[in-house]
Amino acid sequence: MRILITGAAGMVGRKLIARLAKDGMLRGRKIAALDLHDIVPPQAPAMDGVSVTIHTGDLASAGSSESLVASRPDVVFHLAGVVSGEAEANFDLGYRVNLDGTRALFDAIRLAAISPRVVFTSSIAVFGAPFPEVIPDEFHPTPLTSYGAQKLMSEVLLADYTRRGFFDGIGIRLPTICVRPGKPNKAASGFFSGIIREPLAGQEAILPVPRSVVHTHASPRSAVNFLIHAAGIDGAAVGPRRNLTMPGVGVSVGEQIEALERIAGTKVAGLIREIPDETIWAIVKGWPTRFEAHRSRELGFAAETSFDEIIRAHIEDELGGKLY
Amino acid sequence: MRILITGAAGMVGRKLIARLAKDGMLRGRKIAALDLHDIVPPQAPAMDGVSVTIHTGDLASAGSSESLVASRPDVVFHLAGVVSGEAEANFDLGYRVNLDGTRALFDAIRLAAISPRVVFTSSIAVFGAPFPEVIPDEFHPTPLTSYGAQKLMSEVLLADYTRRGFFDGIGIRLPTICVRPGKPNKAASGFFSGIIREPLAGQEAILPVPRSVVHTHASPRSAVNFLIHAAGIDGAAVGPRRNLTMPGVGVSVGEQIEALERIAGTKVAGLIREIPDETIWAIVKGWPTRFEAHRSRELGFAAETSFDEIIRAHIEDELGGKLY
Repeated sequence: MRILITGAAGMVGRKLIARLAKDGMLRGRKIAALDLHDIVPPQAPAMDGVSVTIHTGDLASAGSSESLVASRPDVVFHLAGVVSGEAEANFDLGYRVNLDGTRALFDAIRLAAISPRVVFTSSIAVFGAPFPEVIPDEFHPTPLTSYGAQKLMSEVLLADYTRRGFFDGIGIRLPTICVRPGKPNKAASGFFSGIIREPLAGQEAILPVPRSVVHTHASPRSAVNFLIHAAGIDGAAVGPRRNLTMPGVGVSVGEQIEALERIAGTKVAGLIREIPDETIWAIVKGWPTRFEAHRSRELGFAAETSFDEIIRAHIEDELGGKLY
Repeated sequence: MRILITGAAGMVGRKLIARLAKDGMLRGRKIAALDLHDIVPPQAPAMDGVSVTIHTGDLASAGSSESLVASRPDVVFHLAGVVSGEAEANFDLGYRVNLDGTRALFDAIRLAAISPRVVFTSSIAVFGAPFPEVIPDEFHPTPLTSYGAQKLMSEVLLADYTRRGFFDGIGIRLPTICVRPGKPNKAASGFFSGIIREPLAGQEAILPVPRSVVHTHASPRSAVNFLIHAAGIDGAAVGPRRNLTMPGVGVSVGEQIEALERIAGTKVAGLIREIPDETIWAIVKGWPTRFEAHRSRELGFAAETSFDEIIRAHIEDELGGKLY
């Protein structure tokens, strides 16, 4: 089993690599080689008997994608991309990385005639308001960010390249990944994680939107489970509609805070300060709330079923199982 | 009023030019200049006081799109593209013309900072089976051809470039244009026009699918009406969802034939020979049947309301009003 991972230095990439290093296997086959790519050098895991190759660079630059697939991977995890805020701030960079980079990788696979399973991380950012109360699997994607547009165009490419037989692609639309480990960042969605992560570390967190805001979340652990599951599922069972909205926990911010109180007490939850921010609120209003995600559940994708579970996953995976 | 038309040598392009030549106006303003582009030289209309410039070439080749927008058009009709069968047979050509050509044109407009109204002809080929009985406006596009994928990616670009303020785009998803004038062609959809056009010209036509097949049609005259209307509507009323499924007449092939009998008699309709073709039938099965098209109707787009009207439009526009 030879595996290529793009975006291997990112948060999800690092967690995927750790999981593969622990399992030593994918799709029931021993991992023989890992090709890890990112714009900065990803960290190589310690894996006995596994040939690990580190690649750095821009997928869209000439020859870059070709060199990545020269090892003829059986499974490609295409995670690379610039995030939403960056794609919005820098128009050219967003299209170059998120669209041209994806197309260059897909074309390199096509021309190498290796037909691997390709798992692509799309996003619920392909959807744009207004929405029904619960978004069905057959709801049309109408992105309201360039990032969402680039992810959607990549989904369309993935489906067409799969239909053509160039590879066997599965696009997974990730919900908001929560609780994101690490430092607070400037992403408009940052508070969803911040209001859990910071109080659990004994620090204040700012809530810039009303408690009534509803959003769908899955843990980093679930994101890795989605990727591993997508690598293994039967492509014939998926049919021609290759892009799947992942399951998650649809909750209000108020319910997130109640879960934090249940698990860590009122003192911890009391570290959240409500400071309304009209700019963030305006952005968040356009985001999807809840999804049916029938198809992905039927295909065996599973996430947490309560926000309590999401918090516990964070405590186990990031805090060594201990509360502050 | 300065107008650029790509794909100006095609059937719809020629009819649009004839209409503009007849009207002399667009959006209530006198036409001062026409830039006409295609891969072969489009025919210049005779229009007093209008500066007509003919361009030929490939939109995706360096500098080509830039030269088209140098005249700073107020309205761009982007009709250029290779058809479905060609995009399926020639993978590279389809992506180059239908995706890269569109993106090059959109980027040339963006970089020229002229912000025109851009009317783009998309297609119901963005949809792929299975479908509900009537396809709602919010149904997800899942193309089953490379042509459909390229049109959908272009729609996503159009919406994002509009949201960014680079231009004011309207994408119109055309139903099958029927009755197509001219010679029979090898398109799988050719019989929808052929079973009307050939009998009306006293010739036999072959029907390769069952009479129960349902499909949505609009006349070439309606296609031109859609384009003219799209050039003039208020962008603010359209909102962020810039791609609209056009109205049309959803009828079974049996109902098409009944309309032909009503208008031209049983002898003419008797020229249709049913010769089932499994290959064509397999393709046609994946095509959409009926659409709600609520949004486009609310925005004032109008098509024929019966297939009888579609046949009469053909007789008036192509046969000088006379039956065989």
